[in-house]
Amino acid sequence: MYRTHNCGELRIEHVGEEITLSGWVQKIRNLGGMTFIDIRDRYGITQLAFDENANPEITAQAREIGREYVIQIKGNVIERSNKNRNLPTGDVEIACTNLNILSKSDIPPFTIEENTDGGDELRMKYRYLDLRRPQLQKQLALRHQIAQEVRKYLNKEDFYEIETPVLIKSTPEGARDFIVPSRMNPGHFYALPQSPQVFKQLLMVSGYDRYYQIVKCFRDEDLRADRQPEFTQIDCEMSFAEQEDILTTFEEMTKTIFKNVLNVDMETPFRRMPYCEAMDKYGNDKPDLRFGMEIHKLNDLVKGQDFAVFDNAQYIGGICAQDQAEYSRKELDKLTKWVQRPQIGAKGLVYVKYNEDGSFKSSVDKFYNETELQKWATEFNAKPGDLLLILAGDEKITLHGLSELRLEMGNRLNLRNKDIFVPLWVVDFPLLEWDEDSQRFYAMHHPFTAPKPEDTALIDSDPGKVRANAYDLVINGVEIGGGSVRIHEQTLQQKMFKTLGFTKEEAEDQFGFLMNAFKYGAPPHAGVAFGFDRLVSLIAKLDSIRDVIAFPKNNNGRDVMIDSPSNVSQAQLEELMLKKVEKPTK
Amino acid sequence: MYRTHNCGELRIEHVGEEITLSGWVQKIRNLGGMTFIDIRDRYGITQLAFDENANPEITAQAREIGREYVIQIKGNVIERSNKNRNLPTGDVEIACTNLNILSKSDIPPFTIEENTDGGDELRMKYRYLDLRRPQLQKQLALRHQIAQEVRKYLNKEDFYEIETPVLIKSTPEGARDFIVPSRMNPGHFYALPQSPQVFKQLLMVSGYDRYYQIVKCFRDEDLRADRQPEFTQIDCEMSFAEQEDILTTFEEMTKTIFKNVLNVDMETPFRRMPYCEAMDKYGNDKPDLRFGMEIHKLNDLVKGQDFAVFDNAQYIGGICAQDQAEYSRKELDKLTKWVQRPQIGAKGLVYVKYNEDGSFKSSVDKFYNETELQKWATEFNAKPGDLLLILAGDEKITLHGLSELRLEMGNRLNLRNKDIFVPLWVVDFPLLEWDEDSQRFYAMHHPFTAPKPEDTALIDSDPGKVRANAYDLVINGVEIGGGSVRIHEQTLQQKMFKTLGFTKEEAEDQFGFLMNAFKYGAPPHAGVAFGFDRLVSLIAKLDSIRDVIAFPKNNNGRDVMIDSPSNVSQAQLEELMLKKVEKPTK
Repeated sequence: MYRTHNCGELRIEHVGEEITLSGWVQKIRNLGGMTFIDIRDRYGITQLAFDENANPEITAQAREIGREYVIQIKGNVIERSNKNRNLPTGDVEIACTNLNILSKSDIPPFTIEENTDGGDELRMKYRYLDLRRPQLQKQLALRHQIAQEVRKYLNKEDFYEIETPVLIKSTPEGARDFIVPSRMNPGHFYALPQSPQVFKQLLMVSGYDRYYQIVKCFRDEDLRADRQPEFTQIDCEMSFAEQEDILTTFEEMTKTIFKNVLNVDMETPFRRMPYCEAMDKYGNDKPDLRFGMEIHKLNDLVKGQDFAVFDNAQYIGGICAQDQAEYSRKELDKLTKWVQRPQIGAKGLVYVKYNEDGSFKSSVDKFYNETELQKWATEFNAKPGDLLLILAGDEKITLHGLSELRLEMGNRLNLRNKDIFVPLWVVDFPLLEWDEDSQRFYAMHHPFTAPKPEDTALIDSDPGKVRANAYDLVINGVEIGGGSVRIHEQTLQQKMFKTLGFTKEEAEDQFGFLMNAFKYGAPPHAGVAFGFDRLVSLIAKLDSIRDVIAFPKNNNGRDVMIDSPSNVSQAQLEELMLKKVEKPTK
Repeated sequence: MYRTHNCGELRIEHVGEEITLSGWVQKIRNLGGMTFIDIRDRYGITQLAFDENANPEITAQAREIGREYVIQIKGNVIERSNKNRNLPTGDVEIACTNLNILSKSDIPPFTIEENTDGGDELRMKYRYLDLRRPQLQKQLALRHQIAQEVRKYLNKEDFYEIETPVLIKSTPEGARDFIVPSRMNPGHFYALPQSPQVFKQLLMVSGYDRYYQIVKCFRDEDLRADRQPEFTQIDCEMSFAEQEDILTTFEEMTKTIFKNVLNVDMETPFRRMPYCEAMDKYGNDKPDLRFGMEIHKLNDLVKGQDFAVFDNAQYIGGICAQDQAEYSRKELDKLTKWVQRPQIGAKGLVYVKYNEDGSFKSSVDKFYNETELQKWATEFNAKPGDLLLILAGDEKITLHGLSELRLEMGNRLNLRNKDIFVPLWVVDFPLLEWDEDSQRFYAMHHPFTAPKPEDTALIDSDPGKVRANAYDLVINGVEIGGGSVRIHEQTLQQKMFKTLGFTKEEAEDQFGFLMNAFKYGAPPHAGVAFGFDRLVSLIAKLDSIRDVIAFPKNNNGRDVMIDSPSNVSQAQLEELMLKKVEKPTK
């Protein structure tokens, strides 16, 4: 037996017991005839004492040990004279009588501590050492806990956890698929699922009523900080459910998780906001509602005063930064540069200082007098001391710029506190999105999303105007989940495919089984999927999902630890009847 | 709102309430002025009554409805005059006042009932309809329940659920990998995991102490009834654990599952049997212990009596079938043919009838007198009325034959009752297996399995003799799980790779990261993995895993419902810099 207790377990009441511990050497101190070792495992740290007088041999041995050695000790629990109040085991230490080195350690390539000296690349290569750091231990424990909370809630709500296949079929709609060559069916390929969408819908057709799965999904996309080629989804579907049933069920789930994991109270029902309101007020379909600073459209107020920039702009709008009228010229110049970066793309920045004395100072004083500027201030409900920041130009670009500017000002004013969580359902998304490049409509959510019944007639006459019963859960400006009421009628699904430019044959080839299934009594159904990695990183108060994933890939989709992807043998490719080509074949 | 209650919920105490139900039409009966419809959902069946006099319009409409239509009704709960004791809702029916057809149904291609008229192929194509059948509904509900029981137990035992990657690296050891071409790293491939083996070991090196995951694994093998290209494993690993810790922890898990799911009591500790005993007594490393009928080796007893078949055989052994001395000549001839089939491969079958009157009748009376045969009977502890069945030949083939014969006789004698569950740990597996074809040793479990410390010295001198701390959990002759104590020392792991014929470069290239990890303080660790599909099918009392998987593949690895694997576009292959070839390239 390697241990009688773990390293976080011993307390004052264990004094006098003979125990065995195993763990990693965290720290070694030699003090005169005594050597102290902190021994660590997942559960905590315990102090070991080696007395040269009592046990000269093992004390000498203990002095040879290095950090991260794995050792096993026997000894007696004794009360510490010098208690450590910061450690749950700090009342006791072990007078060691026996020492067994289970495994030696080279000096790690970086320090295994809260603040490590290892760079990103090095820590990814030695991920198994990085994973020893206390943050990562906490984050993976948190991930475990959240997964259990999710299941506990959904089990209680009569959801069945049902596994759907990973080897499925490639469909060109949506993001790019990873494909898997089939040896038994040469020249044919499976695809890895971007989501279990059609399978969960089929489970509804099969009568399973409520389904969930915490499941890996795959997208072959170019990566960003919050994207991974494989990611985890909390995937759910309900039969005989309307939008409101989904919102209620899953805001309750969210509330339960935040309460049980963080002891944070969320009030239900969560606020609901139509997509177009989110776009108008926040320039963004996932607004951060931890702070106000809403966008105001100023077109009517500012046009026709001979200021060409505004007169020629499709859209003029701004935000009001409270108590920031003191911003210096230099700061405003920096902010102007900031909005002119290509990521934002604004031409310039107009400011209006509403001074404490009630006067105005703006970058457009030549065109607008105090009376005019007062009207602007009134529009924003600004008070003396506030600063108005205004952008103008193409509507889409300007709204995006204002959204970014708002978030930036939120950061500067410390309005985006990571301990505060403000949830929001964004609803009434458009069903379709026009793509200029390909001159066709795309499904904003996916092709299985149902139009709002009252908008169905518009599909033929004005497809861009059709709203969907689709919804996103947004917390603190992060899209945590999204879903929709689904189409459950074959004819409507066919029409949807047609609107999306599928030929009848393509629709039949790719989704024939689904439309067939709808022939045999499909219940109305709706569902939602949560980005599990994002949910965990939000709760962990992190910006990237990478540190809530045990073995993530880097930005090139590589696992630098195992060195993957990698070459495979010629024999493997031959079995699959594939050949590598240097350049794309035409 | 589609429903106020589900179809399994209403009881006598609901009488008088106005309710709304939604579900599938299970059955329709027209009786005079009344039409009765059984409405079904996942939760049960409720009887709907339509009264022509009270509601002529909806009654007429109800008469037009077909099976598997999805309907929504409003009505009042009334007490049934004619109660149905077989139905939890059988005390009541609904006097319907409103009928809404949510979805029509064509006539299904097979009947959706306990005993369907649909063949295998048809039911696979319409899996979404097959999944409506009560057995499949029960089996997937059972699977859900078992998954929750597994997690509940492991969570309580301080295991963390940690996800390991699906896109990993191909290694030639073990079964064939599915590979996934990487677009971002053209010419390179990921592989899908056959198990999360190395990742769970790394998690132990990282100090996570106890890990589990219910996880999809992948093997590109030719398929059998109990094999699928993707299957689910309960994957576990523990640090500072010896074999006994694993056996105790996981027999307790098994016991808990059987108790909570089937109310079956299993006594712990489970019986443990060394591999060589299992092979000697049952000819098999996964013996079905629901019955005895052990194999006895007869070499010493039967040789040297001028019976050439026995004299020339490497191995002679048999079983004793109780009370079967009455077997007719015809039955014995049939049994002889059965053992001569190529799957068994015996040359012939020797029988000895120990008649009720104490006399013997055998197929080898010419060579052995009654005194000799009495000795045989004594070896088997046979009593009058028993039948001895004996095979001879090559040891491996004959033991396999006796194992199959034993199971067959167990079936014929109804000794393999599916309601009885007898668990067994098979232990002390050999570490290595010699392969005649490739003239090399293979790891019997996998290359990370530790030799028994007392056998370590034999690795150089007599590798075939080395036993491993490896164990399988067998229930009723089905291998439910297996695992081992792992190597946690770099040097031993290197030696193991060398013994398995890896060059230093190959070992480094494929598993360098693991051996590297062992340099930084690796704890002793051990683990186990359970075949989740097999466990569920065992508990469901089924022979194949296919009907505990929502969307299985057929024997060609095809999903005939979605028609996968399938063609992908030329553009997809170009992006991956791959080309199909008609014949293997050399």
